[in-house]
Amino acid sequence: MAWQTESIMARKGVAKGVRGKSHTITEAEQGKYHYVYGPYFDKVLTVDPGAVVAAETHDAFEGAIKSETDVPSKILNFPFLNPQNGPIWVNGAEKGDTLAVYIESIVPRGPQPRGTTVVMPEFGGLVGTGNTALLNPPLPERVKKLEITAEHGTKWNDKITLPYEPFIGTIGTSPEIEAISSLVPDYYGGNMDLPDVGVGAIIYLPVNTAGALLYLGDCHAAQGDGELCGVAIEHPTVTTVQIDLIKGWPIHWPRLETKDFIMTIGSARPMEDAARIAYRELCRWMAADYGFDEIDAYMLLTQAGRVRLGNMVDPKYTLGASIKKSFLV
Amino acid sequence: MAWQTESIMARKGVAKGVRGKSHTITEAEQGKYHYVYGPYFDKVLTVDPGAVVAAETHDAFEGAIKSETDVPSKILNFPFLNPQNGPIWVNGAEKGDTLAVYIESIVPRGPQPRGTTVVMPEFGGLVGTGNTALLNPPLPERVKKLEITAEHGTKWNDKITLPYEPFIGTIGTSPEIEAISSLVPDYYGGNMDLPDVGVGAIIYLPVNTAGALLYLGDCHAAQGDGELCGVAIEHPTVTTVQIDLIKGWPIHWPRLETKDFIMTIGSARPMEDAARIAYRELCRWMAADYGFDEIDAYMLLTQAGRVRLGNMVDPKYTLGASIKKSFLV
Amino acid sequence: MAWQTESIMARKGVAKGVRGKSHTITEAEQGKYHYVYGPYFDKVLTVDPGAVVAAETHDAFEGAIKSETDVPSKILNFPFLNPQNGPIWVNGAEKGDTLAVYIESIVPRGPQPRGTTVVMPEFGGLVGTGNTALLNPPLPERVKKLEITAEHGTKWNDKITLPYEPFIGTIGTSPEIEAISSLVPDYYGGNMDLPDVGVGAIIYLPVNTAGALLYLGDCHAAQGDGELCGVAIEHPTVTTVQIDLIKGWPIHWPRLETKDFIMTIGSARPMEDAARIAYRELCRWMAADYGFDEIDAYMLLTQAGRVRLGNMVDPKYTLGASIKKSFLV
Amino acid sequence: MAWQTESIMARKGVAKGVRGKSHTITEAEQGKYHYVYGPYFDKVLTVDPGAVVAAETHDAFEGAIKSETDVPSKILNFPFLNPQNGPIWVNGAEKGDTLAVYIESIVPRGPQPRGTTVVMPEFGGLVGTGNTALLNPPLPERVKKLEITAEHGTKWNDKITLPYEPFIGTIGTSPEIEAISSLVPDYYGGNMDLPDVGVGAIIYLPVNTAGALLYLGDCHAAQGDGELCGVAIEHPTVTTVQIDLIKGWPIHWPRLETKDFIMTIGSARPMEDAARIAYRELCRWMAADYGFDEIDAYMLLTQAGRVRLGNMVDPKYTLGASIKKSFLV
Repeated sequence: MAWQTESIMARKGVAKGVRGKSHTITEAEQGKYHYVYGPYFDKVLTVDPGAVVAAETHDAFEGAIKSETDVPSKILNFPFLNPQNGPIWVNGAEKGDTLAVYIESIVPRGPQPRGTTVVMPEFGGLVGTGNTALLNPPLPERVKKLEITAEHGTKWNDKITLPYEPFIGTIGTSPEIEAISSLVPDYYGGNMDLPDVGVGAIIYLPVNTAGALLYLGDCHAAQGDGELCGVAIEHPTVTTVQIDLIKGWPIHWPRLETKDFIMTIGSARPMEDAARIAYRELCRWMAADYGFDEIDAYMLLTQAGRVRLGNMVDPKYTLGASIKKSFLV
Repeated sequence: MAWQTESIMARKGVAKGVRGKSHTITEAEQGKYHYVYGPYFDKVLTVDPGAVVAAETHDAFEGAIKSETDVPSKILNFPFLNPQNGPIWVNGAEKGDTLAVYIESIVPRGPQPRGTTVVMPEFGGLVGTGNTALLNPPLPERVKKLEITAEHGTKWNDKITLPYEPFIGTIGTSPEIEAISSLVPDYYGGNMDLPDVGVGAIIYLPVNTAGALLYLGDCHAAQGDGELCGVAIEHPTVTTVQIDLIKGWPIHWPRLETKDFIMTIGSARPMEDAARIAYRELCRWMAADYGFDEIDAYMLLTQAGRVRLGNMVDPKYTLGASIKKSFLV
Repeated sequence: MAWQTESIMARKGVAKGVRGKSHTITEAEQGKYHYVYGPYFDKVLTVDPGAVVAAETHDAFEGAIKSETDVPSKILNFPFLNPQNGPIWVNGAEKGDTLAVYIESIVPRGPQPRGTTVVMPEFGGLVGTGNTALLNPPLPERVKKLEITAEHGTKWNDKITLPYEPFIGTIGTSPEIEAISSLVPDYYGGNMDLPDVGVGAIIYLPVNTAGALLYLGDCHAAQGDGELCGVAIEHPTVTTVQIDLIKGWPIHWPRLETKDFIMTIGSARPMEDAARIAYRELCRWMAADYGFDEIDAYMLLTQAGRVRLGNMVDPKYTLGASIKKSFLV
Repeated sequence: MAWQTESIMARKGVAKGVRGKSHTITEAEQGKYHYVYGPYFDKVLTVDPGAVVAAETHDAFEGAIKSETDVPSKILNFPFLNPQNGPIWVNGAEKGDTLAVYIESIVPRGPQPRGTTVVMPEFGGLVGTGNTALLNPPLPERVKKLEITAEHGTKWNDKITLPYEPFIGTIGTSPEIEAISSLVPDYYGGNMDLPDVGVGAIIYLPVNTAGALLYLGDCHAAQGDGELCGVAIEHPTVTTVQIDLIKGWPIHWPRLETKDFIMTIGSARPMEDAARIAYRELCRWMAADYGFDEIDAYMLLTQAGRVRLGNMVDPKYTLGASIKKSFLV
């Protein structure tokens, strides 16, 4: 941690960004994985701010797709998809607080080929779906199993290798009274599928209920902008995060910080609404914390804002809007 | 019940559409009202197919807005909005079944002025919202309290009286593992705000979990198409429904039947996706149950389909697509 | 004309709604039909306010689809679709004025079977299109040729007959400097495909350039809400309209008046934006001409507004929002 | 030109990417600038493939906003906005061909402060607009005039300087029979406001009519993703492009090539439709020219595609989807 010592997490966190006690959530410790983000389940772990947690995550199919001859629509059992580790209770967290989660490392695990991507019916960015409900015939189903190592990345075929650029596809806190499918991204995080939520970044999440109830899972070995066919390079991992708690800095949507930029994350349909959410939050953040007049912020973002498309396939689309820290002077 | 004896409910229901035992859910019997549709709460009532249930519903604000000088944004406590009666456990209901709910009567209750509509910040069809997130200043808040009787309707002002055309704004079954805000409409019903869900109609709802777990509430004394400012004429009622259970007729989205037409109901954003869902379901229904080739159904609906806009303000927009029974020959 | 003597057209029009000189635009008089709405073409007719014009309209395919074995994608030659009569120059019309067009009659013409509807690739409400661009395979093409008479309607098949409920699918004034495909609806009218634009109604259109340059065509013998597969019952007609000119009553989007209601028409994507346009215009109209406070209008439309979905298939979707005249007191 | 000698332009162009004759379009030579893309105007220049054209472009306001005390809504005269140079007739170009335009240089011109950005009513990504029509009050208008040099970039304020990263905001060919506002982006190019259309890139545009009729203008000194408030750093320039013509390589939407990637550009509303267009075109391009199976392309783009948001403010939103050339093996 270098720039991180100057991060918002370090400056505002209860633990001042200092690494605390280490914990694990192995498959055995997790037991039953969860398919919703909600307050109705027993916590799997209780931590203090500063805690470091190494979680054994499953892939989005909980390992059920093992071979390229598998037929996803016959194997997958909706809504039991996208299994999540957690919930993790963070001591002291209360509604209105903010959770800071520094992503320390993501390491692939499990037997090869560890990676899975599929084309399946009624899901994806370039096909009719349950939401964009059409009469066209579906595409044929297809499964691709892929070898992944942290050193060599993902071997796509004999000619193409994708670098290992892992990130957490799904991470968030519990809503206060709702329990939402882990396929959905929203104001509390969830299935954002945004590649910026990667190793070295800090994500900030609103706390909606006592203990925050952090969930995470669904790590991707690589992903393009938009997660076009709906399924990135899904793989099981050991994902290690450091958790801190921020009092007195309430946020309405997830935020993210790296060495170089700050980002706000919006999830909605249609896609322009996700962009509006992200950019409005960024305007307001620049106004609240960096001395900008709100309209000045609006005008500067017009010239210098950056947008990252997370997903264009999930029940809500996710976009991150960012600005370089060098402009926040 | 006249045409109802020929209804799908009568023909396919376990109770053959015959009125069974009568039950009540008074305010006292309900106790705590619910703000989510989900499987995590104790049932308030257990019934057999055929049962008739008279429920004392609250208005969407649980009666908290009492005067035209009230300020909604100071009184309302999100997410504790749109209180629901239920859940009602229906004996024999299993995932994959369909619940049929005949709306027998809706009677206004409570002291006058019973009716409430409001304009509040960040909510409504012609303002920026949390989803369509903008920087414009909000409209001023406004509350209108209204006298309602079943006989004379809603007195809007000295010149305008709206006929009493009550319907159930929010009704549905529980999702299998999710618990979704009662502000949301979706595949299980919920906050559709569709005026066709009125007295004399039968609504069909998919059963997602054992017992079906029916919820309802949020009755409106009148509403225009789209529920433009976000708040219809909200009022407390005694709402009486007859419940039946259909085996072997699975549905994916709510359906509705009246004397004259059949309707499918879709909820999504953007609005065209709600229309696509509704119309695709109607094509498929006509193909499955009325002998149409699917593309013939598509072409006939092009000439004879009707669309009713329920809401353009809730987290998902709701549209009903219908066709007259006289064309289903 | 009965209620029409009290219409806005009669009260505000230069000709006071009085029938003036009669004109024709036969196929021969029209010569070349037009495929765009724009100011770059010679006028086909010059009229004074009050003029009555009987135009021989083509169907949307200019009669090219003659048999059920025709293959539309091989016959149709984009962008030469949806042929329009006009432009008609209206003497005295200037930018900022409003054209009033009373639809006097629509009479089918041409040899039987006069009616045509088709399913063709990449077009329609329940298929992937050039805009909602997907990888799914297309539906098979299909053509249906139909007998139409004004007396007996459209014979769909041996069991189903659709009543003859004709309306003008495409009507509007020229943009000031743009020339827009006649497939598009927008602020000047165009391809709205809204069944309310039928016999007995008056449509009001903004004048954007000298002479107004009225175009019309694309009459439908019947159409469901949304024009689902993209093609209504297309047929050639003699369509007779009475044209008047209103000074000092500028409008931004088409408006419509019948005996019972006033309507505003919006066209946009996504569909909610069409609804927002229509309803905002209606709020403003109620405020400007009927004594409502704008927020009162917003609240009343919430309870009493009606929405008609014109099309969900054209380059912009069209919705009409209306309120009964009986509420405009 | 280094990589350009291996570009598609060099390999497929009539002029083989070789620089031909040099031309200018000074303000005087242009005379009247144009506000629509269409075939109804006299060509301002005729060139052979290979020609290099240096055009004096105006800013989007044609220089009318001169001071920070100017009020845009009083000065700007819709639809006479976004003035364009052209049309340039390219000898030999026919419908179905593709125009290749290499952007050689963009040099700011005119007296300081040359740069302009504004916030104006009913326009922008975070406000209600004519399309997303709302009742909220507008933001206050604001004008910012800015010093720009190619060497030092744009001086935003005492602390912030934006690097000079110029690109062509609006460039395209004429539609066949339509004349579309230069504020609109679509299949022929137009007002895409996509920063990738910058110096050193080659843009490919479909030819829709004889001579191609190239227009360009609206250069930006800098712009963030989405052009949030609707107005980038607008400035007058001398923009120099090299034009080539490709036979037998028809395209349906604009494409772009740089040293490192190929990109397809889609424009539509809602935003997801722009993304669908761009990605579908990219799938098809990879299948047609790079040996991919279409579904393989779809799956690879899921892992390695990149998206750039051009604008979220114009009548259609624009997105570019790209893939690195290193994956096209």
